[in-house]
Amino acid sequence: MSSDVSPKPAAARQVSFQALHRFAREAFERAGMAEADAVLGADVLATTDAWGVFTHGTKLLRGYLRRLKAGGLRARGRPRVIAEGPAWAVVDGDSSLGMVSSAFGMQTALAKARACGIAYVGVRNNCHFGAAGYYAWLAAREGFIGLSMANDTPSVAAPGSRGAITGSNPISYAVPAGKYPPLLLDMSVATVAGGKVYAARTRGEAIPNTWLIGPDGRPTTDPSCYPETGALQPAAAHKGYGLALLIETLAGILSGAAFTWRVGSWLWDDGTAPTNHGASFIAIDVGAIMAVGQFARRMEALIDEIHQAPRAEGIERLWVPGEMEWERHARVMKEGMLLPPDVAGSLKEAGAMMGLDFEKAAGIEDA
Amino acid sequence: MSSDVSPKPAAARQVSFQALHRFAREAFERAGMAEADAVLGADVLATTDAWGVFTHGTKLLRGYLRRLKAGGLRARGRPRVIAEGPAWAVVDGDSSLGMVSSAFGMQTALAKARACGIAYVGVRNNCHFGAAGYYAWLAAREGFIGLSMANDTPSVAAPGSRGAITGSNPISYAVPAGKYPPLLLDMSVATVAGGKVYAARTRGEAIPNTWLIGPDGRPTTDPSCYPETGALQPAAAHKGYGLALLIETLAGILSGAAFTWRVGSWLWDDGTAPTNHGASFIAIDVGAIMAVGQFARRMEALIDEIHQAPRAEGIERLWVPGEMEWERHARVMKEGMLLPPDVAGSLKEAGAMMGLDFEKAAGIEDA
Repeated sequence: MSSDVSPKPAAARQVSFQALHRFAREAFERAGMAEADAVLGADVLATTDAWGVFTHGTKLLRGYLRRLKAGGLRARGRPRVIAEGPAWAVVDGDSSLGMVSSAFGMQTALAKARACGIAYVGVRNNCHFGAAGYYAWLAAREGFIGLSMANDTPSVAAPGSRGAITGSNPISYAVPAGKYPPLLLDMSVATVAGGKVYAARTRGEAIPNTWLIGPDGRPTTDPSCYPETGALQPAAAHKGYGLALLIETLAGILSGAAFTWRVGSWLWDDGTAPTNHGASFIAIDVGAIMAVGQFARRMEALIDEIHQAPRAEGIERLWVPGEMEWERHARVMKEGMLLPPDVAGSLKEAGAMMGLDFEKAAGIEDA
Repeated sequence: MSSDVSPKPAAARQVSFQALHRFAREAFERAGMAEADAVLGADVLATTDAWGVFTHGTKLLRGYLRRLKAGGLRARGRPRVIAEGPAWAVVDGDSSLGMVSSAFGMQTALAKARACGIAYVGVRNNCHFGAAGYYAWLAAREGFIGLSMANDTPSVAAPGSRGAITGSNPISYAVPAGKYPPLLLDMSVATVAGGKVYAARTRGEAIPNTWLIGPDGRPTTDPSCYPETGALQPAAAHKGYGLALLIETLAGILSGAAFTWRVGSWLWDDGTAPTNHGASFIAIDVGAIMAVGQFARRMEALIDEIHQAPRAEGIERLWVPGEMEWERHARVMKEGMLLPPDVAGSLKEAGAMMGLDFEKAAGIEDA
């Protein structure tokens, strides 16, 4: 999502989950956030890194801190319910950190779903919320099916368009799965993440012609036009585009947030102005609808069946969504993780902004 | 979904919506269904044809009639709520026609959502329900956002699998859009419909290598292995596969229906045994959450923005989901429609099964 502007390339950095978490929390606190909010923000970002999704983890800390300093993100913003019914609510995020308003949104949905079986919560005055999967997982770890969606400033084309029409509009779900970790899918509606195109641009490499359209609206292998005049191709053409508009409807339109071009860019636009992203959260109380043990056994049977299914030659395993991420997560909790150079470089800068030494903070836990 | 087994190729057939509707209703009534159920079944199939989705319209009547005659579909089955809470219900479809139990499912969701804002309904003992979009539209025409999903016997691969893992698992949504017809997306999780592969097989043509995997689990351009040993490729690889498992969870697992290989094939398996398909329906009461006029204006602004967006050279229009189908529908209501030869041939056989002359029935309205 952002370029590394260090004068020389940073090196990869081994770090423990705890040290990374503590560093991010400390940085958020120095930016004026209350301890509980800082802990939450740090948990979302460090957990995302632990899943191996480095594009959406602590690499983004620097950008959030900039916006907190500029005032477009309110360090002491307090998300609150501004309208509600038995199984729904609309939350005003008060331009707090996207992780704070989004977790509040999912917690509100969980409380409503506990009473009704299912609930919808729309969040307005949100900002970029990082990895959609974190909020879906908040639901699954309490035995609920969770759905998490957000809009964003446009970067993805529609079939036939010249330029972007919708945001990358992430959608995630998580499902408790008995003895297995929750099923967890977190996807954008584009063929690939903008970060992959941007990385190819930085390296001066060509890209497959299914990733991007150029300034003329035609597929291109040249990433140099993104994000200025190019746009990402929607995944599976009209299917990704169609899902993008469902997400725009639930996260942007029905929540009362901004939608499409009205959403500010959290990274590139004026840091003093709120972006008014929208998000939506749906929670389903599995235990209300089916005996928890029965549901667990059925999910286990589904997963076992996939694990035992025939594979193409050379394929060692069939994965269910999230399985790879949970295995990485378990390994990271024991052994720590190797942050890629771009992440380590971004964290170093984030630290410098807040008077923190990332190298030192990371090193403490390595000893 | 089925081959045309007529001795000589049938011709395309011009028919009015009303005549087609009446023919299907009459056929269902002769198969023992009550009038209201027959009308509903006919409405789903004829409306699907009017949208131009001929693969899922009255072409399927013949197969449903076979199953009604054999007893695997119960002509007098009565779907009923077997468990419920404030914003959810589980429906036992009683192996009635999939259109009957699915419409009952969405109507149940609408009633619950009217009280709570959102509702989930899972349907077990369902059968193939035709076009998912019809049930989503039932919600949108009453001012609700509707979501409709179903599982099916496996035909779609997972990344790396040899053979099918999930059904084509359709998902549809519909959103009321003010002065515009509802947004309406109806998609399977596969790259293309199995019917397209099957049609290429019938014509002996090669297919793009993104549609199918062969018996070895590798992409193939040869459609002759489908459906016996080939499997459809999931749309956008892990994204389509991930969505398939969400749909399997909501429609199959949580509803208490069969899932994956436990779902019977409505077309190929023993016609005397219920298939136990699962479906799920979610309705969201827009008017509970946002002033109806405000929501309408926001949806109109979104659609206007897309219509006015820059287009690639040679592209005349940017479409929103369902727009093409609603334009066809409006034209059909005035002018009737030209049924493709495979549909006309299938209807002729369906008629012959029930002592009805399709040519004559279609002709009555042409006069």
